[in-house]
Amino acid sequence: MDDNKAMVIFQPSGRRGEVLKGVNVIEASRLLGVDIEALCGEKKVCGKCKVRIEEGRFEKYGIESKRTHVSPWLEKEESKFISPKEKESGYRLACVSQIKGDVLVFVPEESRAGKQVVSKAARDIHIEHNPAVKIYYIEVDPPAFEEPTGDFERVCRGLEREFGLTDLAVDIFALRELPTALRDGKWSVTVSVWNDKEIIRFRPGKAEHSYGLAIDIGTTTVAAYFCDLTTKGVIDTVSMMNPQCKYGEDVMARITYHMTTPDGLKRMSDDIIEGLNSLIDQAIQNTYPPKKKRKKKKGEEGPDEYMEVPEKGKTYLRVTKQDIEDLTIGGNTAMHHIFLKLNPEFVGLAPFPPVIHHSLDIKARDLGLQINTSAYIFVLPNEAGFVGADNVGVLIAEEPYKKEEISLIIDIGTNGELVLGNKHKLISSSCATGPALEGAQIAFGMRAAPGAIERIAIDPKTRDVDYKVIGRDAWRKYSEPKDMKAKGICGSGILDLLAELYRAGIITKSGVFNRKELENHPRYRINPNNKQPEFVLAWAEESSIDKDIVVTQKDVRQIQLAKGALYAGCKLMMRRMGMEKMDKVKIAGAFGTHVDRTKALVMGLFPDCAIEMIESIGNAAGDGCRAALMNRRKRAEANWVSRNVEYVELTVETDFQQQFMEAMQIPHMKDKFPHLEGVVPEKILNQ
Amino acid sequence: MDDNKAMVIFQPSGRRGEVLKGVNVIEASRLLGVDIEALCGEKKVCGKCKVRIEEGRFEKYGIESKRTHVSPWLEKEESKFISPKEKESGYRLACVSQIKGDVLVFVPEESRAGKQVVSKAARDIHIEHNPAVKIYYIEVDPPAFEEPTGDFERVCRGLEREFGLTDLAVDIFALRELPTALRDGKWSVTVSVWNDKEIIRFRPGKAEHSYGLAIDIGTTTVAAYFCDLTTKGVIDTVSMMNPQCKYGEDVMARITYHMTTPDGLKRMSDDIIEGLNSLIDQAIQNTYPPKKKRKKKKGEEGPDEYMEVPEKGKTYLRVTKQDIEDLTIGGNTAMHHIFLKLNPEFVGLAPFPPVIHHSLDIKARDLGLQINTSAYIFVLPNEAGFVGADNVGVLIAEEPYKKEEISLIIDIGTNGELVLGNKHKLISSSCATGPALEGAQIAFGMRAAPGAIERIAIDPKTRDVDYKVIGRDAWRKYSEPKDMKAKGICGSGILDLLAELYRAGIITKSGVFNRKELENHPRYRINPNNKQPEFVLAWAEESSIDKDIVVTQKDVRQIQLAKGALYAGCKLMMRRMGMEKMDKVKIAGAFGTHVDRTKALVMGLFPDCAIEMIESIGNAAGDGCRAALMNRRKRAEANWVSRNVEYVELTVETDFQQQFMEAMQIPHMKDKFPHLEGVVPEKILNQ
Repeated sequence: MDDNKAMVIFQPSGRRGEVLKGVNVIEASRLLGVDIEALCGEKKVCGKCKVRIEEGRFEKYGIESKRTHVSPWLEKEESKFISPKEKESGYRLACVSQIKGDVLVFVPEESRAGKQVVSKAARDIHIEHNPAVKIYYIEVDPPAFEEPTGDFERVCRGLEREFGLTDLAVDIFALRELPTALRDGKWSVTVSVWNDKEIIRFRPGKAEHSYGLAIDIGTTTVAAYFCDLTTKGVIDTVSMMNPQCKYGEDVMARITYHMTTPDGLKRMSDDIIEGLNSLIDQAIQNTYPPKKKRKKKKGEEGPDEYMEVPEKGKTYLRVTKQDIEDLTIGGNTAMHHIFLKLNPEFVGLAPFPPVIHHSLDIKARDLGLQINTSAYIFVLPNEAGFVGADNVGVLIAEEPYKKEEISLIIDIGTNGELVLGNKHKLISSSCATGPALEGAQIAFGMRAAPGAIERIAIDPKTRDVDYKVIGRDAWRKYSEPKDMKAKGICGSGILDLLAELYRAGIITKSGVFNRKELENHPRYRINPNNKQPEFVLAWAEESSIDKDIVVTQKDVRQIQLAKGALYAGCKLMMRRMGMEKMDKVKIAGAFGTHVDRTKALVMGLFPDCAIEMIESIGNAAGDGCRAALMNRRKRAEANWVSRNVEYVELTVETDFQQQFMEAMQIPHMKDKFPHLEGVVPEKILNQ
Repeated sequence: MDDNKAMVIFQPSGRRGEVLKGVNVIEASRLLGVDIEALCGEKKVCGKCKVRIEEGRFEKYGIESKRTHVSPWLEKEESKFISPKEKESGYRLACVSQIKGDVLVFVPEESRAGKQVVSKAARDIHIEHNPAVKIYYIEVDPPAFEEPTGDFERVCRGLEREFGLTDLAVDIFALRELPTALRDGKWSVTVSVWNDKEIIRFRPGKAEHSYGLAIDIGTTTVAAYFCDLTTKGVIDTVSMMNPQCKYGEDVMARITYHMTTPDGLKRMSDDIIEGLNSLIDQAIQNTYPPKKKRKKKKGEEGPDEYMEVPEKGKTYLRVTKQDIEDLTIGGNTAMHHIFLKLNPEFVGLAPFPPVIHHSLDIKARDLGLQINTSAYIFVLPNEAGFVGADNVGVLIAEEPYKKEEISLIIDIGTNGELVLGNKHKLISSSCATGPALEGAQIAFGMRAAPGAIERIAIDPKTRDVDYKVIGRDAWRKYSEPKDMKAKGICGSGILDLLAELYRAGIITKSGVFNRKELENHPRYRINPNNKQPEFVLAWAEESSIDKDIVVTQKDVRQIQLAKGALYAGCKLMMRRMGMEKMDKVKIAGAFGTHVDRTKALVMGLFPDCAIEMIESIGNAAGDGCRAALMNRRKRAEANWVSRNVEYVELTVETDFQQQFMEAMQIPHMKDKFPHLEGVVPEKILNQ
């Protein structure tokens, strides 16, 4: 073995391989295809990447692993997250531990970047049917001595005669299929035309369908609507975690990764492209019957065979990659740039100019996207700063610019995007909510995956905690402790948490633990390591990680920061527009579909309005991509709106800091919540 | 070693490798990168692919080669070309000999496909300067908080303000360069715009030049003009043999190769793309100073270093591949289709419909052409049948459709293309001249390479032969025999030959050897193998192949067929147009630049006209490509003319056969050549 290399084995996955000595354990995990949580992008501040370096001789793997085979313990960085007892048993932060020799690394469950449960279902919004890719069936005469015109011109003549299409270009890859398609179809052919401009596919005879995908690349989640372009129907919704999460949780961490790592942009871009291809695969796979291994007869040899097992009465579309003839994509400016391998550096630096605002038509093949070889993808335009193509998607789905009513649209993701206004004027801005509302930068925060606490109720009298985890219908109080298998808290649980902590008087309106009231409460304690107060939500026996799941004073601060940023953003935008009240508050994003509207108001997530005026609009960014897929006029509309929303850079507004600080209070101002009487205990409401 | 494979070594090149048993020697030579002449495309009729199978144990190579390691002798096919003596020493036809075991194959000089000497210089034709790719320099303000517009929109605004360009698209690969270019250029940038539609390049600061190539893909020769798009100047002319020649000499042989060989189209296409890339490389290399190996100091080790040695007073353009921003391409329909991987099968079958007539704009990267990543290539449109984009090139260079005078334009290549008419009407047709006029299908025919006889004079009295070879200035009679090193006869020599044989009374006007007159002449004899009469042009001692170079009765027939096809084609087209005479006869193609106009008339290559009306227009197809490169309006003109030339399928004209037979006579009709008196001896003219 090369002297500069060391063997690394990850457990429990068993992944193994050689890496250059000197790389850290996170880097090694990436190289070997193991996902370790790295929410802070290796800034050494999240403590999510704890791993255990195993000591001993592992004959099975032919290596000897020693704790000295990684770089020495860093007291300043590691003691914050790793207890003395953990340290003794070999725990280290993967981001600071460099490989120095052969090691076997155990990745505990809470450090694994799990597969997220995503719920971004397609809403039923009205979309006019006018897709960019349309199919046309024509029949032509075969060539003859008197009329020996070439295949392409023969078809073009037919398309002009029957459908009035003129001056069509043709993609060279499509053109290669034409002679065979025409002859196989006995001089009849189905032609796929993009934007009435370019032929992208020839199929022999009459074809009835063509398909498309609308994809929203979120910082954390990628969701795709798989649609039938000819019927407008949504066939399937597929989603995945953004594979770039391993490079950092939020947009700034990703931009930093690009700026500090040679080839970082390429890596992140390649990862998302690869991810999208697997998402496309997944969508296609679902259109075929499941496969089962054929049982072998006695004594039969040879490789396993698989056979399709169609469900009774079910028909299968059997879609191929070549059948996917259009694709629309949205994402915030950073996701947009990284996806397209456009330098995202300057989007992250004041005054935050993107490389491009305008939408782009790009051949899928030029990006390595595996759909029809000649197909284009349509990338939605960006607004400004981090308010990108995803927000344009929200806008063309919701169309506030066509309405008299004033709406505030909040897209809560890792980055918060705000739009306020109506047909007369629209302004937008972004606020760094950070990933706290999605579960990151929280001691036991996690993504919405099985084991995540998603609902919490705290009894205001006993201050006992009840909760529900993803993957189990029964709440804690109706379950055996060991059945809960709690692992952490996800986004929706976090907002519940803040509201419940406050409602139960555990924290004050300024977010400080109510020490006096809590003394001697079994769930309240001071952490011996960091001397910080914490409150136990689930006991170790209820968890699958063999630890008490707690909320810390720092966690409460993080949540306050997030909600403060959102609230202050809304307030400042209202001030800009000179308005006191909105007609509608629309909450978009996965968070929006889960959040309890009352609790959001209690917490002061956004300025006051009647509860019935609050509407969850789900994955509106994705809906906008779908609108652009199904109606090409929406593409022009997207470009228009992207240049006609006025972007407000909140951080340069006067008294931004002041507003922000105030907004961190819970609730912001009592007298603005008259409708909360009865919902929130009088004592607390009067704080 | 795999039992299904055998080791093959080619000498004298020394190329070696394993091939599947069962493939023939030609195929093996292709796989191992050795070029063996295969003029007939392995139809077993040209006899050009003679090789010698060496017998013995070749310790040096670790193999034992036996003559039985190739398939058995085929009497019918091989005895026609291989004498009993040659057979005895191991000669075989490479196209019929299949590899059965390890062999060492010697490829004699006359069977090697040599590097051709090509003379396709750029003519000085008038071209309006309006290239499809233009460069624009602009300066913009840097982004600020009040004006945070993105890079692309910032540049677009500048282009609109300064140059009136609007609605520009941008290639994604170019866009990736923009942020860096803008900042490196301190907010000034040079933008390359294609057809006022799409930005294909950003360069920091002010750039002065951009470059383009105009390429004519001939069946046998590929020629490229390397041009400065900004100054219209031709920087260099580079050329090469079409690497597809190894698959067959003429268009039908190539089409047959596609139809009979799996992946044949891909192979031929890949070969021409690879060839074009090397041609591009060659053009670029010429813009740098030559390199010399640096002498090592005494005792110095390490790899060789090379340094540039500029010629005094010479400046070098130092062009990179990225600097080549446009490329235009023409070729006959078969070359066009094979280059683009379009199925050429149906162009070869009546009624010969091409896949497409219209011109194509294709991203160079989609074809694997290594020029600027975002650049397009422009492929000229096709007319009909085999009259392709090359003939359109001839037309837009010569513009007969703008003139009152009636011209006959003859493009003589492996395929002959004819255009007749003026601004009121133009007709075109093609005739299968075959490769005889280029030296193929002739016993000692060869390409215009060193050693090829290119001029012949036969004394009418003594019937002794004088000649000149390529690569040597002195004629035979002023040289020592051993200095001639003759190898064969090339195209221009062949037309000389027919005229001289006739002028000296060696053949009659019907093309038959004048046996009675030749009896006892030392140069005249009956070949003992095929019992055919032949006439010696160069004795073995004057050759580099140690053989008498002869012209056979069959050769004369081949030449007659070629010239008959051309002559009959011209006649039939004139009849179609109801005309007796033209104002101009223009001869295009490499052949045209070499041919002796008088002899061409004597031989009846085309209908009679005054000698001063005959004009050689050189590589007019290439000139047309250059016109399209430099003036985008020529592209529209090309599409217009390609659809407005009436194509005549000669072979279906009534009495085509009759006309053809008559045209094979030499000269066609005496009374039509009054101006030949004095040029041709009276006796012969009266035959």
